[in-house]
Amino acid sequence: MRKGEQTRQEIIRKAAPIFNQKGYDGAALSDLMRATGLEKGGIYRHFASKEELAAEAFDYAWGETFDSRIHDLEAIANSVDRLRQLVANFVERRGIIPGGCPLLNTAIDNDDGNSVLRARARKALNGWRSYIISIVREGIKAGEIRAKTDAKKLATLMISSLEGAVMVYRLERDEEPLRSVRAHLENYLEREVRAASK
Amino acid sequence: MRKGEQTRQEIIRKAAPIFNQKGYDGAALSDLMRATGLEKGGIYRHFASKEELAAEAFDYAWGETFDSRIHDLEAIANSVDRLRQLVANFVERRGIIPGGCPLLNTAIDNDDGNSVLRARARKALNGWRSYIISIVREGIKAGEIRAKTDAKKLATLMISSLEGAVMVYRLERDEEPLRSVRAHLENYLEREVRAASK
Repeated sequence: MRKGEQTRQEIIRKAAPIFNQKGYDGAALSDLMRATGLEKGGIYRHFASKEELAAEAFDYAWGETFDSRIHDLEAIANSVDRLRQLVANFVERRGIIPGGCPLLNTAIDNDDGNSVLRARARKALNGWRSYIISIVREGIKAGEIRAKTDAKKLATLMISSLEGAVMVYRLERDEEPLRSVRAHLENYLEREVRAASK
Repeated sequence: MRKGEQTRQEIIRKAAPIFNQKGYDGAALSDLMRATGLEKGGIYRHFASKEELAAEAFDYAWGETFDSRIHDLEAIANSVDRLRQLVANFVERRGIIPGGCPLLNTAIDNDDGNSVLRARARKALNGWRSYIISIVREGIKAGEIRAKTDAKKLATLMISSLEGAVMVYRLERDEEPLRSVRAHLENYLEREVRAASK
């Protein structure tokens, strides 16, 4: 990797927690300078705008977060067990990037605002949902998941309830909502999703 | 109401959609001036700071939103039916204040930020949860809800999954997540919460 590209990546990595904690408008140049140890010119030599830096920082933050959520999932043979582990990872492997879930933060921060960041958040949501949908479809094919299961609805339910629990958790700094939603989803996966014979 | 107090209330009412859509940092003085039709001095004669205005605007926005969610609920005798109507109201009576759910927005905007706004959001969440908890407890007493139901966990589950669905809905501008979560909660209330005999 060339020196310039290395510096660019390091700026992205250091800016990611700032944008994730403070939001797009809240992230001041002085915050970004403090986090990166660079002057304004040193930062913006590598990015056309604050928007470009924020978008790259989101992609980085989401990449790290998503990786932690799917950690070791491929090793699990049964698709329902894989969905359960996805929920467990979500609850247990938090805080990869300080400030809470980058998808939730960026979605709420930009649903009326910056269209570039909103598009990145949509892409992240789509990717996560597609990942869950493909597990469910594999599970149906393998006879592990009930044939009548609506893969998209199940994915939406899992994502909505987990992300909503993050909002409550972040506000109260109490893990109870994460535990409650996890227990609810585990119960639901066993009672309504797992095929009877497997 | 005195003239000064009237003006103050009108500023709050007009500032509420600005803060709800743009967040605390994103709401610029120029936005507030445009929305209220007042100059800076005309606004800040009535408020000690942007923080005070934002906090009052949140309380107003949340009050309106909460009222719409509990609309006509008291007229429903059965507690499970009341919970179902709460879910229905949440999904159907949206958009009272432009910009999505003020609780979700303010919680995410301030979980790492402004402590006054964060405290207001916590208070709002507490109030909503307490409201649900008291319906559940009444329901248990009346034999309409299973005795083993954990009122706080049920309230947390309802709030988390509905608010998470708002995030997905707002990002994609597609109501499917709201409908999915509603159907899931209705099904859950019937199968796991409503007492067998009622």
